[in-house]
Amino acid sequence: MLDFIQSSLETKALYATQSWIKTNASHLKDMDCSEVSMKEMEKISVLKNPSEVLGVFAIPTQPTHDLRSINDLILMLDDIRDPGNLGTIIRTADWFGIRHIICSENTVDAYNPKVVQASMGSLARVQVSYKNLNNTIRSKPDYMKVFGAVLEGNDMVEVAKPNYGIVLIGSEAHGISKELMPLVDMPITIPKYISSKLGASAESLNASIATAIICYEFRRKQSS
Amino acid sequence: MLDFIQSSLETKALYATQSWIKTNASHLKDMDCSEVSMKEMEKISVLKNPSEVLGVFAIPTQPTHDLRSINDLILMLDDIRDPGNLGTIIRTADWFGIRHIICSENTVDAYNPKVVQASMGSLARVQVSYKNLNNTIRSKPDYMKVFGAVLEGNDMVEVAKPNYGIVLIGSEAHGISKELMPLVDMPITIPKYISSKLGASAESLNASIATAIICYEFRRKQSS
Repeated sequence: MLDFIQSSLETKALYATQSWIKTNASHLKDMDCSEVSMKEMEKISVLKNPSEVLGVFAIPTQPTHDLRSINDLILMLDDIRDPGNLGTIIRTADWFGIRHIICSENTVDAYNPKVVQASMGSLARVQVSYKNLNNTIRSKPDYMKVFGAVLEGNDMVEVAKPNYGIVLIGSEAHGISKELMPLVDMPITIPKYISSKLGASAESLNASIATAIICYEFRRKQSS
Repeated sequence: MLDFIQSSLETKALYATQSWIKTNASHLKDMDCSEVSMKEMEKISVLKNPSEVLGVFAIPTQPTHDLRSINDLILMLDDIRDPGNLGTIIRTADWFGIRHIICSENTVDAYNPKVVQASMGSLARVQVSYKNLNNTIRSKPDYMKVFGAVLEGNDMVEVAKPNYGIVLIGSEAHGISKELMPLVDMPITIPKYISSKLGASAESLNASIATAIICYEFRRKQSS
């Protein structure tokens, strides 16, 4: 909650228990905060085990995400449907200091309560916009490359250090859409590192897991 | 479904639509499979969008997981409570060819339907057991080290190549329990790779994300 209160988001209302208010008084300053009992909290929260604080914030204006001014990695999500996955991707991006996520118009809403919950406060720092990805990629500067996560691409570890660029992640069910595949400059795959004698193994990774491993590997490369 | 049918699990019953049976006849051989309509499937499945096939399998006997005979990485999960996280961890372990997961007795049941669904068939290949982790770690051979995922440990990237060993992951809410921390040989942390001028960032990673990044990094090290 403090992540949100201390962010640039506009706080519309704040409800908290007496003990939460006491503990966090120094962060609240002159903010309005209504004191409620846990019983009242159970009624206003959608959670089975409600937190001691509930805030209402204005959904921020969508960031413009001008690709020419972003000198870092950008995540692009092509129809991520699962709120838990989107929330986890936002949280992971925040961990690795990736501040820009551009979602396709069919990606789940970042302000869906399940996404907000899974993102654990990181929505206060990561900028999320919804755009037509085809048009957005076509308008990018030439020097910015598109790395697309696929099942049979180049070994991600062998790819040169990506100082900036777009990491494109496909949907849980269908991967990167047919429409966007021709715009991918470098199809990349997370190596399995398994010996052939082991036999079968998982066909794919969860979308948020694949995103995290790629972000980690690219950040590791950048730092070396 | 084919992952399970082709595994060593005992098939108790199989229900599928006519079209699924037609497509997969070669895999079924002389197996009994009851033909059902999609309408009937909607009634017997717990899913909103039921699959065209539903199988009932016997839960296998718990693997013994004799640590002296496992010459590979082993995952140990200390009270993972979220079924989606456990399922995703099983799927990720399978991707990286990690065949052994030992869960604490308070970890969510691996045969919970949500776990089975998130594991996407990988439960057919990854062996999952439930044990008292304290006793289990105390009985390990000396040469097998315990790498514990913590928020302030050694940079995971700097750790020497781990040819075998235990990767210990704590619970979503509390991390590695106080009881197990003294048994950790090497506390490790996933680096954030962010510059201090960026300001705040996520306090932690989702448990399944942290597990995946550690598995990836250890496998990458082993292969180099």
